[in-house]
Amino acid sequence: MLNKVLIVGAGLIGGSFALALKAAGAAAKVTGLGRSPASMARALELGIIDEVAATPADAMRGADLVLIAAPVGQTGAILASLLPYLEAGTIITDAGSTKGDVVAAARAALGERVAQFVPGHPIAGRETNGPDAAIVDLYRGKKTVLTPLPENPPAAVERVAAAWQACGAIVHRLSAQEHDTVFASVSHLPHLLAYALVDDVAHKPHSALLFQYAASGFRDFTRIAGSSPEMWRDISLANQTALLAELDDYLAQLTRMRTMLIERDGASLEAVYANARRARCRWIEAIETAEAPAPAASEE
Amino acid sequence: MLNKVLIVGAGLIGGSFALALKAAGAAAKVTGLGRSPASMARALELGIIDEVAATPADAMRGADLVLIAAPVGQTGAILASLLPYLEAGTIITDAGSTKGDVVAAARAALGERVAQFVPGHPIAGRETNGPDAAIVDLYRGKKTVLTPLPENPPAAVERVAAAWQACGAIVHRLSAQEHDTVFASVSHLPHLLAYALVDDVAHKPHSALLFQYAASGFRDFTRIAGSSPEMWRDISLANQTALLAELDDYLAQLTRMRTMLIERDGASLEAVYANARRARCRWIEAIETAEAPAPAASEE
Repeated sequence: MLNKVLIVGAGLIGGSFALALKAAGAAAKVTGLGRSPASMARALELGIIDEVAATPADAMRGADLVLIAAPVGQTGAILASLLPYLEAGTIITDAGSTKGDVVAAARAALGERVAQFVPGHPIAGRETNGPDAAIVDLYRGKKTVLTPLPENPPAAVERVAAAWQACGAIVHRLSAQEHDTVFASVSHLPHLLAYALVDDVAHKPHSALLFQYAASGFRDFTRIAGSSPEMWRDISLANQTALLAELDDYLAQLTRMRTMLIERDGASLEAVYANARRARCRWIEAIETAEAPAPAASEE
Repeated sequence: MLNKVLIVGAGLIGGSFALALKAAGAAAKVTGLGRSPASMARALELGIIDEVAATPADAMRGADLVLIAAPVGQTGAILASLLPYLEAGTIITDAGSTKGDVVAAARAALGERVAQFVPGHPIAGRETNGPDAAIVDLYRGKKTVLTPLPENPPAAVERVAAAWQACGAIVHRLSAQEHDTVFASVSHLPHLLAYALVDDVAHKPHSALLFQYAASGFRDFTRIAGSSPEMWRDISLANQTALLAELDDYLAQLTRMRTMLIERDGASLEAVYANARRARCRWIEAIETAEAPAPAASEE
């Protein structure tokens, strides 16, 4: 049981973490610290946090675990503001969608005390935010990736892993660089592509007609373009190198397909479509197998 | 009430049309004609059709309405095979996702009897197909776009419109060219983009790791890449000109965003993301308003 958990930011990510820890009986008290007094008041009202900290000093006093759940661009400044009050027994983690930049910011802000910072990323997003979006089971059955530092004592990593497990998450470990390459490909690029399409359509002179006939395919394809622009600006810049590499691969792919279209090369187009469909079907089957309930243990 | 409806192809689109017409009491008999005897037998077994036609001559005898629900690339050949048996009282329509090429194929196949062909496109897809995918309410509340020809008598267009309305669809009219421009933008391009991304990811050397961390955003973004490769090859080629124009606009958009990324121009990136989010929210609100149940009529 953690005596005191501090969440910096009480929106979807931080708020759901707090709700899940409390529901699991894994935290005696959750304190909130945030830049918006209205959000903090709402989080208190919703029972997400037990108290609002007036200052970083109050917030950090006696905290066992601190989760930073704010746009990744703010991580360095938040860590710098907490450092003067960082006690020896406190472990800090974060929920940022990029890890290379967060590690660099943490090293710059914390110096040798970076040993008390265990970087993390829960893989559970949705396009809503704010305290009202927080739900107790957001992390249940979802992955949380930790990217521990060489300086982290094993017990520090364990404390963070145990908290996520108490929320129902499955904890994985990757290096920060592996993490950023993987998520540039399967998350950051798709977000950029979805935003790009909706903005493109919205700028056309006949956009009203276009939106009139957009249907469920367009709706699902662009769901992630409903996400927070500020958060995704930060992620795009924070993971710039990996995202650019993925974007360039994708542009090369589209350029090849453009040539197939111009040359009316139906066989090559169909091969791309069929390979994509096969790969996606295999992936969905793997997910469904992984998420299927385990067979009941024999009672013999 | 139509005495005899012929569906050419008894998969998701043709099968759902047949089920809805029968449920509405709008067709006394539905006959099926198709290239796969197994699919026809299954459609009969499922009660989608009342009989399987052995030949085009049998199929067309006494038909009031014919729906061609097959990949668009086959439309011309199907129409040519039906023409010798086309009675004066029969109206043919189709469900193809492109209209310019279908109109050209119909004119080439039917000559002056193209007056009996009313092109159409129900806007109701999903990534399943075959007779088992057919459902009675696929078209309920959805749009069906008709792109009538100057040669079509008003009564012919009305017969097709009334059949779709009996299925619960809301009938719209566009020119074939308007139709193709609109759907290149909001349907055909997103399909190409989703297929492109999954194929790209599947070809990377670390694709197993990538798919392991792909989550709900990737799943929704790529849902349409589960669609039929043959059908989408045909659509891509059939609507080549409009699709290329949309793809080029999109490539220009991605190239602008690539420059923003390289220059770390967070303000411009955020402006694109925020505009996309606003446009999408407005669109979703408009859909939800349109789909909300009408207020009950006053009884006074």
